[in-house]
Amino acid sequence: MAKILLRPDFLFVGGENWETIKNGELLIEDGTVIYAGPRRQYTGGEIDKIIEGKNRLVMPGLVNAHTHAAMTLFRGYADDMPLMDWLRNKIWPAESRLTSEDIYWGTMLAISEMIRGGITCFADMYFNMDAVAQACMDSGIRASLAQGLIGLDNVKGTAGLKESKKLVSNWHGSGEGRITIMLGPHAPYTCPPQYLQKVMETAAELNLPLHIHLAETRDEVRECLKKYNKRPVELMESIGLFKHRVLSAHCVHLSKEEIEILASSKVSVAHNPGSNLKLGSGIAPLADLLAGGALVSLGTDGAASNNNLDMLEELRLAALLAKGSQEDPTLLPAREALKMATLNGAKALFLADGTGEIKEGSPADLIMLDLEKPHLYPRHDLCAHLVYAAVASDVEMVMVKGTILMERRELLTIDEEKILYEANVRAARLTR
Amino acid sequence: MAKILLRPDFLFVGGENWETIKNGELLIEDGTVIYAGPRRQYTGGEIDKIIEGKNRLVMPGLVNAHTHAAMTLFRGYADDMPLMDWLRNKIWPAESRLTSEDIYWGTMLAISEMIRGGITCFADMYFNMDAVAQACMDSGIRASLAQGLIGLDNVKGTAGLKESKKLVSNWHGSGEGRITIMLGPHAPYTCPPQYLQKVMETAAELNLPLHIHLAETRDEVRECLKKYNKRPVELMESIGLFKHRVLSAHCVHLSKEEIEILASSKVSVAHNPGSNLKLGSGIAPLADLLAGGALVSLGTDGAASNNNLDMLEELRLAALLAKGSQEDPTLLPAREALKMATLNGAKALFLADGTGEIKEGSPADLIMLDLEKPHLYPRHDLCAHLVYAAVASDVEMVMVKGTILMERRELLTIDEEKILYEANVRAARLTR
Repeated sequence: MAKILLRPDFLFVGGENWETIKNGELLIEDGTVIYAGPRRQYTGGEIDKIIEGKNRLVMPGLVNAHTHAAMTLFRGYADDMPLMDWLRNKIWPAESRLTSEDIYWGTMLAISEMIRGGITCFADMYFNMDAVAQACMDSGIRASLAQGLIGLDNVKGTAGLKESKKLVSNWHGSGEGRITIMLGPHAPYTCPPQYLQKVMETAAELNLPLHIHLAETRDEVRECLKKYNKRPVELMESIGLFKHRVLSAHCVHLSKEEIEILASSKVSVAHNPGSNLKLGSGIAPLADLLAGGALVSLGTDGAASNNNLDMLEELRLAALLAKGSQEDPTLLPAREALKMATLNGAKALFLADGTGEIKEGSPADLIMLDLEKPHLYPRHDLCAHLVYAAVASDVEMVMVKGTILMERRELLTIDEEKILYEANVRAARLTR
Repeated sequence: MAKILLRPDFLFVGGENWETIKNGELLIEDGTVIYAGPRRQYTGGEIDKIIEGKNRLVMPGLVNAHTHAAMTLFRGYADDMPLMDWLRNKIWPAESRLTSEDIYWGTMLAISEMIRGGITCFADMYFNMDAVAQACMDSGIRASLAQGLIGLDNVKGTAGLKESKKLVSNWHGSGEGRITIMLGPHAPYTCPPQYLQKVMETAAELNLPLHIHLAETRDEVRECLKKYNKRPVELMESIGLFKHRVLSAHCVHLSKEEIEILASSKVSVAHNPGSNLKLGSGIAPLADLLAGGALVSLGTDGAASNNNLDMLEELRLAALLAKGSQEDPTLLPAREALKMATLNGAKALFLADGTGEIKEGSPADLIMLDLEKPHLYPRHDLCAHLVYAAVASDVEMVMVKGTILMERRELLTIDEEKILYEANVRAARLTR
């Protein structure tokens, strides 16, 4: 890998305040950022690759904090349907036919799309996770993977935990630390409290964070109240789940008390506005979560319910929806939204190594955008442009841990033509 | 111009039901569609240009039913601000410095972006409309233009109507009918009833439709009630505005009775979800408008409040927002959304010549998308992909009235480099 020098006209190092550095410079050595700041007279010895960035902007890679990558195979298979009808009669039957190979190719399709849109890291929950991990290894992307655990039946629940342990020993820390593992109890309505106790024991034993769906729909809240006389977040708190590190996806239907619980327990919330709208789940109280001090990141959810894996779109949607639903244009300003999609994402995935921002010592997970497009002119405020105008195809170069995965919009680690072919053939078989 | 033959793998003729024709064929002669249907053995004599469409989809061009094109100059100039602060301290002072040349270049920037995103036709309301018309002439796009009329002051109000008349005689029907003119009374709160009477007289005299902003914000409704004891739509009905052909932008804050008035009066509503969210205006009752039988089209509004002119994004936002805000995933299904962005747009602009769909005799306003992208795979349902996954950069070719404006993503009628330069320099001066 060795030394790479980038000289973008604009450098956003991200972090807390998204300061713009004009005429920036970045030096990367063996996958790590050595320097990020104003352009200097370079005197540091031989460089293996120089990337010039005239009219280009470099920023931290986007973190997709909640998805089900292999579900790209079901993109557009069934839309505009009531949720349970969609799941029972379309998605679940098709999923039951999935082989490990299907999941590999579906995940590769997802990764192709994610890299093309500037995503350098994602949190996944699905099954046959060895295939997902292999796709991450092959493509070079960073990921935090969780086997989805269903605890409604003792045998399956125990088997799931066993598979999760195997996943840890097979993959945790692989790809020089690119791959990390979480435990993935699916949701309160598929994992009863006594099963969640076992999950928590395993989490403590292996020192793993948890990734769960929480308070996604009104029905979930209603049934939880009926069964346990507690709302989902209250229930999870009462059984001690939040004593662990938890990434909690959706969090759409929350009481004021539940927002306080999430904030004070330092639970990571993955906001999924596109999926929540499309499935008719509702609009999460994002402004209240942020005002309450919760750590909120952003996710696309799976492509069957979004229907894309486009974090720039998700970012814009989050910012627009926060303002529009509360009729307050000052909510979720551009820099806050950018932080959600980068630094907060890395925190949500419990990556404590400097991922999510560009600073000395952090892994070189970054993207370069081409600004020479009508929709990015004039250049009053490039942060605002990133949030309110930029699109996935503006991303020109993507780097993870110093390895270039896309250059001039060409994927370097992936045989895209083969992936499109395999995905189409397999999707047809699965939905026949 | 003469004869052009297109052979796309997928042809959507649009119209009412968005039927998919596999292995399609289109024959265009002198700007008009002569044949659109399944591929045939072509025997019609010499062809001037053949466009092959392997892995390509041809559909009607998108119609942007409400924008202020030249406001691209203020894209990203001021965001995340309270509405009146934004207008009074940022937008209005900058607008007061606009020259006719600025408006020409700002409009050219907007048109570049619109063509790149598959928009073949737009409805504009601004001032110095000669410059806007010239930009439409030069670029080859179709447009319906209205001088924004403010009737708060007698002198200015009369001058505006005079300019509108001049606009009609200078441009109405120009570019072989590409350019049409409407009258543009800005809004009920800037055009009192007695001024609107004069506007209606002129509309009747010249047989012109009207383009107006209506019920955009809660404040507008409150002030209208205070002043006239009527809500905006009620007020407009009471003075007889809806006896004319009216394109009414926004329509966010409506009572049940007002929805009935809009539907029964056959008022065209231009829905602007992106702008309404971003400015914190609120969420329009789209599902109720559609259920009530209103004719709803889609618009981006200006880039100062959106911040892009991307109809594929607007289309997706409309579909997602209708479902999410009502918690009903069956609302605004994909084909309905596509109709809003094409056929309903043409109807909203009162183009009675077959614009907005592809059928024999209609003007060849169409676009071709490249489907060979990860985010458009697998190919379960291409209509769903257009609404829920496609992005502006998938549009590869754009044609208006048989003239190709973009081919392989290269703009053919526009010097893009010059436009980006001019826009940036002028924007800097205007906001200094």
